[in-house]
Amino acid sequence: MPNQDLLLSWLHTLVEATANVAFALSGLLAGIRKRLDVVGLCVVMGLAAFGGGTLRDVLLDRRPFFWVDHPVWLWILIAAGVAAIFLLRSSHFEFTERAIQWPDALGLGLFAASGTQLALAQQLPAIVAVLMGVVSATFGGILRDVVCNEIPTALRDRRPYAVCAFVGGWVYVLGVQFTWSPGAAFLLAAATATGTRVGALLSGYELPSGRDTRSHE
Amino acid sequence: MPNQDLLLSWLHTLVEATANVAFALSGLLAGIRKRLDVVGLCVVMGLAAFGGGTLRDVLLDRRPFFWVDHPVWLWILIAAGVAAIFLLRSSHFEFTERAIQWPDALGLGLFAASGTQLALAQQLPAIVAVLMGVVSATFGGILRDVVCNEIPTALRDRRPYAVCAFVGGWVYVLGVQFTWSPGAAFLLAAATATGTRVGALLSGYELPSGRDTRSHE
Amino acid sequence: MPNQDLLLSWLHTLVEATANVAFALSGLLAGIRKRLDVVGLCVVMGLAAFGGGTLRDVLLDRRPFFWVDHPVWLWILIAAGVAAIFLLRSSHFEFTERAIQWPDALGLGLFAASGTQLALAQQLPAIVAVLMGVVSATFGGILRDVVCNEIPTALRDRRPYAVCAFVGGWVYVLGVQFTWSPGAAFLLAAATATGTRVGALLSGYELPSGRDTRSHE
Repeated sequence: MPNQDLLLSWLHTLVEATANVAFALSGLLAGIRKRLDVVGLCVVMGLAAFGGGTLRDVLLDRRPFFWVDHPVWLWILIAAGVAAIFLLRSSHFEFTERAIQWPDALGLGLFAASGTQLALAQQLPAIVAVLMGVVSATFGGILRDVVCNEIPTALRDRRPYAVCAFVGGWVYVLGVQFTWSPGAAFLLAAATATGTRVGALLSGYELPSGRDTRSHE
Repeated sequence: MPNQDLLLSWLHTLVEATANVAFALSGLLAGIRKRLDVVGLCVVMGLAAFGGGTLRDVLLDRRPFFWVDHPVWLWILIAAGVAAIFLLRSSHFEFTERAIQWPDALGLGLFAASGTQLALAQQLPAIVAVLMGVVSATFGGILRDVVCNEIPTALRDRRPYAVCAFVGGWVYVLGVQFTWSPGAAFLLAAATATGTRVGALLSGYELPSGRDTRSHE
Repeated sequence: MPNQDLLLSWLHTLVEATANVAFALSGLLAGIRKRLDVVGLCVVMGLAAFGGGTLRDVLLDRRPFFWVDHPVWLWILIAAGVAAIFLLRSSHFEFTERAIQWPDALGLGLFAASGTQLALAQQLPAIVAVLMGVVSATFGGILRDVVCNEIPTALRDRRPYAVCAFVGGWVYVLGVQFTWSPGAAFLLAAATATGTRVGALLSGYELPSGRDTRSHE
């Protein structure tokens, strides 16, 4: 089915682009908040965008990395970092976390599905494959926050994020088990992760936490 | 000597189990202290338990990782993270660092010995092999503390920990040099690391430090 | 040209030695400031000296690491960490960041050139190769600061550092493009990175930053 392969490959490219932009913007926001210089903005954007996928590929011993195969993204990142510095000087420029949470949810779905897919293709156990999807989707943000000297948001804000990637990954595993077409399994997995994330954002649902901490913070 | 091989393999499994539980519990304690959510608890437990061994395997270019070979541990970690959240809600639940320092000392010995063994099997220089044992034993805790936004305990508390792994590793190297049986070298190395750690804990011995810092903290 | 090869190899060794000592000393300073114990000093020195090159080699899937090939450096690091603890006790001992910024600039040039060279030898795209040089030169310091629980200096102090490595890397790429001899390209690239760094230090030049932050810190 060359047509489906083409669609999948085109979807992959679109997915990666959307996810990379959303993840890089989350890095930009974090870097601005920490008053980093232009080098810092570029590094934190790069970690947020490519850190999760790169860590997944190091763990899976997989080469080339996304940014080696598509080096144009490195230029885009550097250009965005430099542009951000100059835009920031006109202090009217303002954009918020809220604005990027929708493309970010799309990125979450696509990384969860593609991470799980790549790991399953290496015959890894299902739980490992699903966690590779979670790593792809979340560790960019975790590395971004570690370098910014914060406890990572993904580990403490009680908003479902990694959990949505986890659920989406299992949808992919089940799809493969039931011998759906790879494209259908991929799409449904990504849609599940993105959908549960959007649902959680809209409903304000919070994960259980040990003790109520809202009053202390 | 198939019997000895069997004993070694069984010992390895038992060792890894004890070490993993102790290391994961240290992650759980750190995560609770930082008020992480359920995802954060699972990630920090996973880093504490598997981070050191996984970093060692990445450096040695060795696959599969322990948690890929034994994926049941991933389920145990997730179950423990979820259970901890619910146990914490009944606020009577209390457990302390002190309670896990003995199984943790056991883990220290076993990781030091097995890390050194794996690196020596790759014909690496003795000092590199010993440091691979130290990395296995300590970097789980270091990654745990970095993600929790703390200066790692292992680097500043002046309690011998990495030093015990270092001494144990050299015992293994000497054992191999003197052509002891691998099992005997392994056991003696692990016992040395664990024993020096237990001795340090019981005696309150502190490593030399540049200036006396106790009065300032 | 065996003579040139010999010169290059000898230069490489000298370069690595100077860079390692300067980078390790920056780790020592950071560790002392954070009141780490002797283990902490050794770990932070090791991260500062070998972290950048090791991360580059993990990303390039390249073995053996520098410190596996030259394990004597591990002994030097450990000896330096132990010596530092005892020197610190005689409180007259004092040395400053300023004293190491010149050998550090030399290290910057040499790591930028060698990182770019190693990546180009793997046929990676030019921008990736240049960034591998930047990673070699800067990530030791970034890992040092992350472990010391600081936002990395390289990302926020607005002093050109990564930028100098970036410029030097491009000189190497251009040199190869114009088929200069590898030795000439290497030397000119390293000299450019070191020279721009020294120029920036002497002139007090600062990178553009979003908003003026000097008054707030």
